[in-house]
Amino acid sequence: MSRTMRLAVIPGDGIGQEVVAQGLKVLNAVLPSDVKLETREYDLGARRWHATGETLPDAELESLKDHDAILLGAVGDPSVPSGVLERGLLLKLRFAFDHYVNLRPSKLFPHTDTPLAGRPEIDFIVVREGTEGPYVGNGGSLRTGTPHEVATEVSLNTALGVERVVRDAYERAQARPRKKLTLVHKNNVLVYAGHLWKNVFDRVGREYPEVTTDYLHVDAATIFFVTQPERFDVIVTDNLFGDILTDLAAAVTGGIGLAASGNINPTGAFPSMFEPVHGSAPDIAGTGKADPTAAVLSVALLLRHLGHEAEADRVEEAVADDLAARGTGPRTTDEIGDALAARVSG
Amino acid sequence: MSRTMRLAVIPGDGIGQEVVAQGLKVLNAVLPSDVKLETREYDLGARRWHATGETLPDAELESLKDHDAILLGAVGDPSVPSGVLERGLLLKLRFAFDHYVNLRPSKLFPHTDTPLAGRPEIDFIVVREGTEGPYVGNGGSLRTGTPHEVATEVSLNTALGVERVVRDAYERAQARPRKKLTLVHKNNVLVYAGHLWKNVFDRVGREYPEVTTDYLHVDAATIFFVTQPERFDVIVTDNLFGDILTDLAAAVTGGIGLAASGNINPTGAFPSMFEPVHGSAPDIAGTGKADPTAAVLSVALLLRHLGHEAEADRVEEAVADDLAARGTGPRTTDEIGDALAARVSG
Ligand SMILES: CC(C)[C@H](C(=O)O)[C@@H](O)C(=O)O
Ligand SMILES: CC(C)[C@H](C(=O)O)[C@@H](O)C(=O)O
Repeated sequence: MSRTMRLAVIPGDGIGQEVVAQGLKVLNAVLPSDVKLETREYDLGARRWHATGETLPDAELESLKDHDAILLGAVGDPSVPSGVLERGLLLKLRFAFDHYVNLRPSKLFPHTDTPLAGRPEIDFIVVREGTEGPYVGNGGSLRTGTPHEVATEVSLNTALGVERVVRDAYERAQARPRKKLTLVHKNNVLVYAGHLWKNVFDRVGREYPEVTTDYLHVDAATIFFVTQPERFDVIVTDNLFGDILTDLAAAVTGGIGLAASGNINPTGAFPSMFEPVHGSAPDIAGTGKADPTAAVLSVALLLRHLGHEAEADRVEEAVADDLAARGTGPRTTDEIGDALAARVSG
Repeated sequence: MSRTMRLAVIPGDGIGQEVVAQGLKVLNAVLPSDVKLETREYDLGARRWHATGETLPDAELESLKDHDAILLGAVGDPSVPSGVLERGLLLKLRFAFDHYVNLRPSKLFPHTDTPLAGRPEIDFIVVREGTEGPYVGNGGSLRTGTPHEVATEVSLNTALGVERVVRDAYERAQARPRKKLTLVHKNNVLVYAGHLWKNVFDRVGREYPEVTTDYLHVDAATIFFVTQPERFDVIVTDNLFGDILTDLAAAVTGGIGLAASGNINPTGAFPSMFEPVHGSAPDIAGTGKADPTAAVLSVALLLRHLGHEAEADRVEEAVADDLAARGTGPRTTDEIGDALAARVSG
């Protein structure tokens, strides 16, 4: 009996295209022979916007639904006004497909070049809320462009939205050896949203007596990310704090070239989307300098999400082995992709 | 002719009291003999709140106005519900006295123990907006405590508020050798507030043609704080991003034990307030382990703000020399204060 994996691919802009190609290469190499991979490519991003003015037409949003998962490279270019593609494409997808779990693992692979190399093991995941908070796009501007302008941004937080992501984080913590969950917020200043988060966190926690919990303000959390990242196991946090903390996490572990992410709808009502945390890096696009490892690790998250645990493990092991074997000479995007594909099929 | 410096002192809680004592010791030692120091101590913080339920009574707020500056240690204790002292005392002071420039310098002193020791020179200042943004306390909660709760936080930003702090940052950048100013925001997601900041930043920048500018999203900024902090000279940013970035800045330079801050009203309409960035650290209060250096460096900022440039320089040099001379054995709070006082008067 053969199975089919229906994958929507959004290569996007700049290095997005280059790294997605390597992700697909590794995916093809690792998939069991009885799984048939069907991909459909979507031309979305800066190029499309320049050509047609469209970011994500309804028909394409509809057709994206008809897939098991989405693999995205990176979108964005300095030639597009800030916010157009972010709000009109990336965030539109996260919101439309209710990607409420934005999953971002951080692991210090051996032999990685980082200010913290040689430190005790760093291995934590950030469960970032993906559909609420300051990201809802609920803002406005009055007397725009005048000396009397007032601009607002509203952070919206609901018990429903907070509880489902907090519960997901407890489940993940429960399943890990250390069983530790840290809530990060700023409840001494953002008291309304902060207290909602803290109350839900405490209440749901009573259902997970084996999970050890603690709370950190976001500012204090950044200090521990630098001085003591090994203290973290699972972190759950709001959309904006998660955005900031996961870039920082990437910086203190392997660098943004290794940071993968999943925009997950755990209910399965809509396809989940997997993407490297890095951007389209137009400055190095076309030079072959982009490290496709984050895209490949995003493929591992995708495999795990779709139940291909063994294949996900193999991809992650291939990355670990490849990093350990890296010499000093630079390799091209393609060479790294080839090496990883060889390892997973070897 | 003798001059008087009228100083309001809020020692606060935990190590706040211990470090403020050292700050005053150094201040006394460095002040020229023709300056008379008059201090008035205010009993505010967790102890006061437990005793009377008060955070900052109007009469005390009034009487605080009647000073040249305020020196604050740290307030807060786990026994006080989160937000009570922050909103009722600390932020109340910043807002009532219109402390719109929250100034936080970061310098990697030689011989400091940090993950980045041995890196190229790090010497930047963060000019954090202090009276707007997500800190305005404009939020609410509906159906609180039920599964249908909705909680909001509104970030308020005005052209007036953004322009005055941006202008202050340009002035500071203009006065420094590198003349570089970086705006940090998240204008690809928080488009209304972000565009206000960016437009004002660009417009005011035309008056400072010698200042080189750039823009970073807050998530990307955290990466550069770790991988390339030497690229920064002056950073201007919003209240919440500034809170997060300055703790991170402390972590990558000398640690939170060295991070000083000034809550400044540049118009002089109200007294400015100087405080270490660190908290009251109840876990080490009373042990003599607190490093008073951040409080002493806050005194240097205070001196500079009041026009005592030479004395401010002497305090900063004393700290640099003391750090360079530090052996491996720990010293008590008091011993460090004594050493610094000896250096400034020596
Ligand atoms: C591009 C931007 C909208 C996005 C975000 O802020 O979530 C990115 O920074 C990320 O972390 O995926
Ligand atoms: C205690 C808290 C209200 C405060 C802030 O968030 O501004 C502190 O973190 C700081 O940075 O001074």
